[in-house]
Amino acid sequence: MDDILRHGTSKRMSKAVVHGGTAYLCGQVASERTSDAREQTRSTLEKIDGILSEIGTDRSRILSATIYLKEMSDYGAMNEAWDKWVPENCAPARACVKADMAAEDILVEISIIAAV
Amino acid sequence: MDDILRHGTSKRMSKAVVHGGTAYLCGQVASERTSDAREQTRSTLEKIDGILSEIGTDRSRILSATIYLKEMSDYGAMNEAWDKWVPENCAPARACVKADMAAEDILVEISIIAAV
Amino acid sequence: MDDILRHGTSKRMSKAVVHGGTAYLCGQVASERTSDAREQTRSTLEKIDGILSEIGTDRSRILSATIYLKEMSDYGAMNEAWDKWVPENCAPARACVKADMAAEDILVEISIIAAV
Repeated sequence: MDDILRHGTSKRMSKAVVHGGTAYLCGQVASERTSDAREQTRSTLEKIDGILSEIGTDRSRILSATIYLKEMSDYGAMNEAWDKWVPENCAPARACVKADMAAEDILVEISIIAAV
Repeated sequence: MDDILRHGTSKRMSKAVVHGGTAYLCGQVASERTSDAREQTRSTLEKIDGILSEIGTDRSRILSATIYLKEMSDYGAMNEAWDKWVPENCAPARACVKADMAAEDILVEISIIAAV
Repeated sequence: MDDILRHGTSKRMSKAVVHGGTAYLCGQVASERTSDAREQTRSTLEKIDGILSEIGTDRSRILSATIYLKEMSDYGAMNEAWDKWVPENCAPARACVKADMAAEDILVEISIIAAV
């Protein structure tokens, strides 16, 4: 139905699904996974920028972020990349918990809900 | 207030809560938990079909799915059941992380946000 | 943009972000973390009450709750505090999984989506 817009849809998942002015993004991980948590976070946020741009919004309009960290000892490194990236006065609600992801070398995964 | 519709409400939780055209489903698990992850995923998705039907929507209108797996080694088995179930061109945004659930024998739990 | 209202915004995150009548709350944890899971849940829910009040809504209008527990053996204790807190006929959709949080002494963290 045309009240739901999907972006980057494969058989398994869509990179983003938009409905009623709200976008749900697929859990994003870094492209390069040989790097440390700071760099994986930076890469993940860059991918989020790309998807948000493709659906006509941007990082200043994020409503909620759920961050999964493979090791909570990377909390500081993740936050360094995160804090640099979040636009002033536009920080979303956020939760961060420890979890393993689909592949061993993924150190961080981020799920985003954003306004479009 | 009548702008929120609840379905299957107990003291502790509702099976689904609908507001502004968006439905939030309770984390669903398989009815039978003696089976493997593929079958538990199939059973879980069947329960999701039932709830979506009861609130007047269906699997082609899912916006976001968060999948919790007890063992990431079941990722392939879960995806086999998932890929068969998702209607063509209607795949939701999705995240999948490893987590233990409320009971030892639960191998997969799925949280759904859907359009109604 | 003024279609997004943020509450309690720091450089890193907002306590709550409201858009289109839906509020996303930051993952909440207890103020006092020397206490057990029942008391941490009670304290966490009290903080959620405070934030909901500040954005003009209340616990009867929660749509979805995601509960992270450090130890699933605390499931009963968490539920005792939860069941006392949820208003009759207003229970949200809910999921509960095991996860470690940002600090060792956090036993429970709760993410809320609510109608405003």
